[in-house]
Formats: sequence, structure tokens, C-alpha cells
Amino acid sequence: MPKAKNEQNRSVRSAGVVSIPVKRGRPKKTEPQMKISFLGGLNEIGKNMTVFEYEDDMIVLDCGLEFPDASMPGVDLVLPDFTYLTRNADRLRGVVITHGHEDHIGGLAYFLKEVNAPVFATRLTAGLIQGKLEEAGIDKITTVNVIRPGDVLSFGGITVEAIHVNHSIPDSIGVAIRCAAATVVHTGDFKIDSTPIDGEVIDLSRFAELGREGVTCLMMDSTNAERAGFTESERKVGGSLETLFVHARKKRVIVATFASNIHRVQQIIDVSHRMGRKVALSGRSLENVVSIASELGYLNVPQGVLISLDEMRSYPDDCLTLITTGSQGEPMSALTRMASADHRKVHITPNDAVIISATPIPGNERTVGKVIDDLLKLGAEVYYSQMYDVHVSGHARQEELKLMLSIVNPTFFIPVHGERKHLSANAALGEQRGIPAKNIILADNGTCVTLSKSAIRADASVPAGRIFVDGYGVGDVGNIILRDRKKLSEHGLVVVSIAVDPISSMILSEPMFESRGFVFVKDAEDLFADAAELVLDVFDRYTRAGRFDLPAIRSHLRDDLGRFLYEQTKRSPIVVPMIIEV
Amino acid sequence: MPKAKNEQNRSVRSAGVVSIPVKRGRPKKTEPQMKISFLGGLNEIGKNMTVFEYEDDMIVLDCGLEFPDASMPGVDLVLPDFTYLTRNADRLRGVVITHGHEDHIGGLAYFLKEVNAPVFATRLTAGLIQGKLEEAGIDKITTVNVIRPGDVLSFGGITVEAIHVNHSIPDSIGVAIRCAAATVVHTGDFKIDSTPIDGEVIDLSRFAELGREGVTCLMMDSTNAERAGFTESERKVGGSLETLFVHARKKRVIVATFASNIHRVQQIIDVSHRMGRKVALSGRSLENVVSIASELGYLNVPQGVLISLDEMRSYPDDCLTLITTGSQGEPMSALTRMASADHRKVHITPNDAVIISATPIPGNERTVGKVIDDLLKLGAEVYYSQMYDVHVSGHARQEELKLMLSIVNPTFFIPVHGERKHLSANAALGEQRGIPAKNIILADNGTCVTLSKSAIRADASVPAGRIFVDGYGVGDVGNIILRDRKKLSEHGLVVVSIAVDPISSMILSEPMFESRGFVFVKDAEDLFADAAELVLDVFDRYTRAGRFDLPAIRSHLRDDLGRFLYEQTKRSPIVVPMIIEV
Repeated sequence: MPKAKNEQNRSVRSAGVVSIPVKRGRPKKTEPQMKISFLGGLNEIGKNMTVFEYEDDMIVLDCGLEFPDASMPGVDLVLPDFTYLTRNADRLRGVVITHGHEDHIGGLAYFLKEVNAPVFATRLTAGLIQGKLEEAGIDKITTVNVIRPGDVLSFGGITVEAIHVNHSIPDSIGVAIRCAAATVVHTGDFKIDSTPIDGEVIDLSRFAELGREGVTCLMMDSTNAERAGFTESERKVGGSLETLFVHARKKRVIVATFASNIHRVQQIIDVSHRMGRKVALSGRSLENVVSIASELGYLNVPQGVLISLDEMRSYPDDCLTLITTGSQGEPMSALTRMASADHRKVHITPNDAVIISATPIPGNERTVGKVIDDLLKLGAEVYYSQMYDVHVSGHARQEELKLMLSIVNPTFFIPVHGERKHLSANAALGEQRGIPAKNIILADNGTCVTLSKSAIRADASVPAGRIFVDGYGVGDVGNIILRDRKKLSEHGLVVVSIAVDPISSMILSEPMFESRGFVFVKDAEDLFADAAELVLDVFDRYTRAGRFDLPAIRSHLRDDLGRFLYEQTKRSPIVVPMIIEV
Repeated sequence: MPKAKNEQNRSVRSAGVVSIPVKRGRPKKTEPQMKISFLGGLNEIGKNMTVFEYEDDMIVLDCGLEFPDASMPGVDLVLPDFTYLTRNADRLRGVVITHGHEDHIGGLAYFLKEVNAPVFATRLTAGLIQGKLEEAGIDKITTVNVIRPGDVLSFGGITVEAIHVNHSIPDSIGVAIRCAAATVVHTGDFKIDSTPIDGEVIDLSRFAELGREGVTCLMMDSTNAERAGFTESERKVGGSLETLFVHARKKRVIVATFASNIHRVQQIIDVSHRMGRKVALSGRSLENVVSIASELGYLNVPQGVLISLDEMRSYPDDCLTLITTGSQGEPMSALTRMASADHRKVHITPNDAVIISATPIPGNERTVGKVIDDLLKLGAEVYYSQMYDVHVSGHARQEELKLMLSIVNPTFFIPVHGERKHLSANAALGEQRGIPAKNIILADNGTCVTLSKSAIRADASVPAGRIFVDGYGVGDVGNIILRDRKKLSEHGLVVVSIAVDPISSMILSEPMFESRGFVFVKDAEDLFADAAELVLDVFDRYTRAGRFDLPAIRSHLRDDLGRFLYEQTKRSPIVVPMIIEV
């Protein structure tokens, strides 16, 4: 391999874009190598789907999806790019899932339609996956195998060991992935909670044991790497809820949270039960999760506490708790509909105390703020995370990350799960813990890392990320359509339609204009009368001497009309010429 | 006045929407009254423009504008609604401006074209306004009168006294507005800084003196009312900058901040000068403000420190500081262009340390995050407020707000400058300070408050807010256009065009389709072939028996085609039928 050349490249590139670190160290040709590829993720890197390969064996860690951001209007979901896996389907031995959040399991129903592979997950995660596969009607095509922390799965030359971690959903795992080339520890989404609601503390001793045995590479959650200190225990929220419930003892209490945060739901149910309140649920995903989690024993609901939305009418406000989705201000969610007085069964009054037990995900601050404002205007009291301790994160902060780095003590380090700034912050912690900068990889989605005991190297080489699901179509929306949508939303559109006789080159109708989303112009009639003249002028120019150059006319209509409208309005609508040949 | 009825209304309405508090107390008919109306603001209430009236005299406090949020694509600016003032122009005695931020002065160039009135502002503010009026070519139509803290202006029956406050721009004032009906203290945007860069501490003793004399109503900045404690002194940022400059002593330092934060700019220049660095500026607004502030003596730039962007080439990186705009990740700003390697003169390398000396305004977190990510990918070090103390707010937190409430000790309280949740948080502080809830008004934009020594009352009665500036048009974009733009951005549009002979009812062409922003359909030909049949079918139905019902055809094309496309794609594009009569 041309090592010298790569080394040289590196110093040259260091003055420009160094998005992907180039080859480092000197891998021996004979040394076995593991490959790690990041296929999914939107703003976050190495999140939804990661592929591990050793020789002919390949496994996938997680198969999630993302929800679109503001730059993707009309897009429903964003899937990882499965191309690399469909091409290598014969080598895929299995899919291991770390936990039951949408960004780790949501892609399975799409993926398994393309590639059939056995799925492995802990019991709750498996239950949630099963529900999704049933919903998609593909529960028959694959098996979801239930594993337990401590289990070691064999996939040809690769083994995967499940290790219990704490997170905002029970039954989460990290993994140790081993082959002859390397031992990789991947934390999954994690935090260290010494007083978790289910009593199951993260298995730090197993991580430490692996560290003593020797870990080639650590891949670690970067979500909270910007934040100093230690993430507080989930149990802390219980105390805050208790205080707020006492404060609101004469009112109905509505708590919005993530459906999947089963320990949070447990705490809300517990405090409600202690205070003699009945609990109703609003939101389909919440009902789903509560039903699955209760069935599998992850949620303990005392007999007679749960009531339906309709039964709420039979109880006074101060005997009621309503748990709802919509903590992110999602437009169609139950809480948003309540806030805009648009919920069929729940009407907000000044006798409501609303607790938003979540933090806005970056980008959602405005929508959440709007929901709070609307609830306040309806007279409700609102308790939210900016003013009250009604939420803790499910992700480790700096002290926890440093602790994990210490006990795993890896040779190489790949921060994952975060935007570049989170990865960089996590990398800085690695350097503080003594890992040389050259042993730390800042990857991108699409990066393929080659790893051996003595060397690590990264290239951008696999197709990754950003397959859009839009209505019935998967992958049907591309960048051109999104660019058009953005332009339409900012400038609108003007259609001009005209009938011509292609043989005589005669114009058979007046130019007809329609606009949508275009500025309302006070003297629109004048504007479009002038535009009509311009249209006729273009026809005139390109139909002279018997010529009738339709493509030229079309393109000039677009350009000249576009320029004219911009001059008149300072707006650049999309111009659609429709020339009808009669 | 029908007091009893209103009292009754109140209790009835308390179960539903209580957006605007109804009449409170028992104003004596003979008691003089002051009216306060909120004309501007977008998400924030009572922000851009407030009108105070006593008998025949009327004054305006501030005349700002807002930048559109994501729900207003294509909109450039949002102005207050001037209708109430154009209708009462003969009674308007003057416009008093509290400070030079865009959301307090930006509307003047539009307002003064409609209503001519003398403007009053402190020296720096007046300088910034003068610049704006010159730019708009209307500096000749009015005078900007320079006032000083302590000045008392007389506008018929109303007097306005300027009181010095601290904020993130020098020369900011609060005001005491007095008439026979009431004394109102309005803080403007403020914080309490005991160690400000210019040495001018907020004039708390004057606020206290007014309090002792008796203040009818306090109107107070709510921006940071959710946040506990005390906002730190601007001086603190200087210390942090010093540390970061030492850390980055071998690199070029780029600092992004708000152009108008002159004390911040002063501190950046000071630390650069001490460390032997030259300072260049990037961003037109920054150059403007620095030039005006230097000229007026608010900014003290040592001789020879400022260089042009072009001159940067002559100095090594470690002798250079670049101050730039774009701290909010604005798409066209200098910093965003640097981050996307798209700036003509500044190219980011690993030898750059970028300090983002600002906090993302809610809604901007994503764009700022993207800029940080891009800078990191170019190899720069990036210091930002989430990880480093590189910014302090210009707005008072809870302890400062309570202090102001204590010393002004008003009978009534109107929290202003914030979303409803900020106003509510501020109101809660008022209650803690002993103001009864019934004496506190939670207003909206458009609210008109009637105030006397003994009573306060609020109605929603003036036209307010949300006049859109879109290209050359002011007020040309309404809600229908915005609704269309939203739909266009999510679902795109399909145009169908067809030529007909209105006399014979004959169809003269095939239906022709064009789509923009609509899902890319794999079998588009089939889809539109089916759609064409549907079009012909609609024509067939509505041209039977000699009838040719064009409006019916148009509306059925829209509905039937829309339904068909939704069934096929789960998307609802805007359908535009263009029927050309030949």
C-alpha cells in the first residue's frame, strides 16, 4: 500500500478540507482487518446504522431512521442508504439492535423488505420491533431473536456480546464486537445511572473487564459531550414530579413526555396512584408502548389506575392525570391539538397543570415555545424544563464519558452519535484521557473505517444516509425536488399557458397567467399585461422566417419572464411555460 | 359603564380562552385615563412599537421590525401595523426610541414615509437611525433629535423622561412617561451591569426616586424572566476572550458577534491590540456600526489597529483578528460563507480559531450548529457559548427583575418583550413582589390598555403586527399566499393545461402536465396517462348537451385530479388547471 503517498497527502490536505482523516500508522499487510461503515444519520453521524465486517462476515448494528428537518419540506422520514447491504446481502449474518428508539429500530420495516436477515435484540426492544413489523405486515419474513445482556452471539468470524447500559428506555445495551482483527466496544446510547428506576445499573464492571483484556477501539455516544458534569439520575425527575403534583393538587395534571420513556411513564403513574389519581393516555404511540411494556413486565401499572379518555368525564379534575405525547410540539400530536383547542376529547382550562417532561430537541424550540404559549393563553399552568427540573437526559455527559474512556482504555477512539461539534467535543475528552489525536477518527456518514490492532484508517467510500420517504414513495424525492420546494416556498410560481399552431406558427390564444405563493401585487393586471407582451415578443423573435423553435421559446420564456418579474417585484418565482400545440 | 356585566363575563370566560384580561377595578368616570397600545411584534409581545395616549396627545415608543420565522417563507421583514397611527397622525407628537437595535429602530424608514413625526433618541441611537434614513433616502423628511438621559420631553399633556439603562448596545434608555392620568415606567431592553465597559451603570437611583414618588404602572423587559439569578457583566466576556486569545496565540482568531454590540467589539479590539494583533472587519453592518460608533466616540480604536480584509494578506495568522457578523448562522452572512468555503477573501484553515461570541436566538440553533460543524470540518478550532463563556446576555434575569420591581414599586404591572411564557414568568415575579394578580396585565400584540391611577383594563382593539415586506412589496403577502407557499413546499404542484373551443365545446389538445416539487414517481408516464383520462372524463361530464360549464370543469379538475394524485402518491400537490379558450 502506498503509505508514503498517503502521509504526504495528509500534510498537504491539512491546510484545506480535512473532513476525513487519511491513513494513519502503518498497518502490516498480513495483519487482519475489520471494516466499520456508517450508513445512516442525518445531522448526527454514525447513528442509525453501522456495518461491521471481518473477512466474509458482516453484521449490522441498529437500523433506525430520522425525521426530516426544515430543509426537507414534505418529507415524512429519512432512511439510511441500504445500497451497500443489498449489494453484499449474501455476507450479512445478522442485525443487532441496541435499544428500542425510533432512530435505532425505525428502519427495520423498510430494510427487511430488501434484505432478509435475523434480528437480535433484548426483550423489550424485540417487543417494540415485533409491533412495528406487524404494522408493516412483514412480521412473517424474519425472526426477532431475544437476547440478554451477557449473551455472546456468533456470526462466523465475528462475535457480539451484549452489555447492559442505562438510557431513557429500558433494556438498552452496548456491545463488544470481536474478531481476529480487533475488539471494538460500542456504547450505544448510554448514561450512567446509579439509581435507575428498574434497579439495573449499567454493567461498568464488564466494560472495565474488557478494558483490562484490551480494547482496540471504543465507539461512544457523543450526544452530551458538550456538557460538563454528570447527567442526573432518572429518579430525580420523580422527586420533581411529586412536588409539582402536590402544588397542583386541586387541578387536573397533564404530563407530556416521550412515549418510549417507560421509566418516566412509570414514575408518573406511581405518583398519580399515590395521590389517588386515575391515569388516562393520549397518543397512539404511547398506548402502544404502554401496552407492550406492561405485557412484558417493564411497566407496572396497579390494577384500576388506567382509564380511557372517555372515562375521564366521570372523575373530577383533581383525581385525574393525563399522559400525552407531543412534548416536541409536533404539529399533529395530542398536546399540540390540546394547546390549539383542537383536541376532540381534551379541553384545556385554567384548572389544568401541564408538565412538559422533556427538553426541546435542537430545532424544535420554536414549536415547543408556541405550544407553551398557547396553553398559557388557555389559562393553564405550564411547567417546562427551562424553569423546572422536569426532565433529565438519557445521554452521558463529560464526566461519564471520561469515566467510560478510562475503564475501557482503548487504543483507538471513534466518537459517534452527534453532529460534528459533539464528536469534536468527545474527541477532546479522549485526548484529555491520553489517546493521541492521530488515534481518534472524526467520521462522517458514508465513512468506512479500516481497523487493525495497530492501525486505523478512514475513507469516505460507502453510499450513506438520506433516502427520503415521501408519501408512498421511498427514495422518490431527490435534491432537485427539494430545491424546487424551497424555491416555491420562498418565491411561489407563475404559470403562463398559450396555445399555438405548430404548423403555421400562429398563436391561437392570449397568454394566460396563474400564480401561486407569488407576492400579491397591487396592480397585478398591469403586471401581467406587460408580461403578456413580453411573451408575445419572445414568440415573435423565435418564430421568424418560418422557424418555430419550441425549446428556445420555452427557455426564453422562463428566463425573460423570470427576469421581468424579478425586476418588478424583487421575487424570483419558478416560471412554468405551458405551450400547447393545437 | 356596565361593570357588573364585565365581572360576570370574566368568571364565565375563565373556563375558556382568557387571552386578554377584562376590565378590573372600578375606574371612576371622571378619572383621567391613559391608553397604551401594542402595535408591533411577532413572537414577542409589546416589542417593536408601543403607543401612549392622553387626551389629544399621542407618542410612540420605538419603531422596530422583526425578521420572519420559518412559518413565513420568502418574507424579508415583518413590520408593525401602522394603521392606527396613520388614522391618528394629527395627534402624534413624537417618536421616542430606547436604543439602536433593529427591533426598535428598523421600522422607522417605513413608518416615516407614511407619517411624519419628530424622532427623539440618544446620541448613538440617533447616529444609527440617521444612517438608516440616509440609506432609505428619507433623511430629509424628518429630524432626529438627540436627547440625553435625564432629559424630560414635553408632548402636550405627556412628558417623557429618559433614564439610562445597561443593555448590549451603549446609550440605551428606559423612560418615565407621565400625564395627569398616570406615571408609567418602561424599562426598555435592560440589564443591571455594575461594571459596564463604558462605566455608565444603569441609573437605579432615578428608578428608585420615581418609585418613591409613586409609579402607576411598570412595563418591564421579560426576555430572561425564565432564568434564575443575575445576568453577568459584559466585562466577564473580556476575561474569557483574553484566555481564548492566549490559547490560540499561534493562530488567526475570528470572532463572530452582533454588529451592534459595541462594547463586545471594543473588548475584542482591546485584547487584540494588547496581543499585537491587527483587526479586520467583515460584514457591511459591522463596518457601518464601527464607523458610526467610532465617529461618535462610543468606540475607541487605537491608531493603526484596523486594517482592511485585503491587507490581511500582509500579516501572519498570529498577528490577525477578524471580527465578523453571522453569529446566528444567517445564510448570507460572512461567517456562514466562510464556513461553507464560499467567502471570497477569507479562507478557513486549521490555523484558525473561531469564537462565536453570541447565543443562538431560539429557532436558530440548527443553522448555528451547521456553521460550527462546517468550521470544524475545515479544521478550525471553534469556541461557542454552549462550551465556553464567550457571551453574556443583554437582558435582566429574575433577580434583576425583582430588584427593579422592588424599587419602582408600581401599582400595576405589564410584562412586555417576550413570548407569552416569558410574560407569564415575569408576572409570577411581580406576584412574588406583592403585586396582586388582578393588577397584572398579560397583553397581546393588538392589545389596548386603559390605565388610571386606580384601575387598569385591557381590550384587543388595535390593528397590530405582521405586515410583511416581501421583495418590493409592503403588505403584499397575506395569509393565503403563505398557506400556498407552505403547501407548495410540502407537496409541490401539478399544472394541467388544455386547449378548448368554447363555442363547439371541442377539446383541441391533449391534456399537458407539468409538475414542480411533486414526488418523483417512477412510473410518471403511466400516472399522467391515467390523469389525462380523468381530465377528459371531467370535460366529458360537464360539456354534455351543449353545456360548457367552465367554472365547474375547473373546480372538478382541481378536486378530482387532487384526489386521484393523493390516492396514487399520498401527496396533495396544488393542482392548477389552465383551460385555454382558442
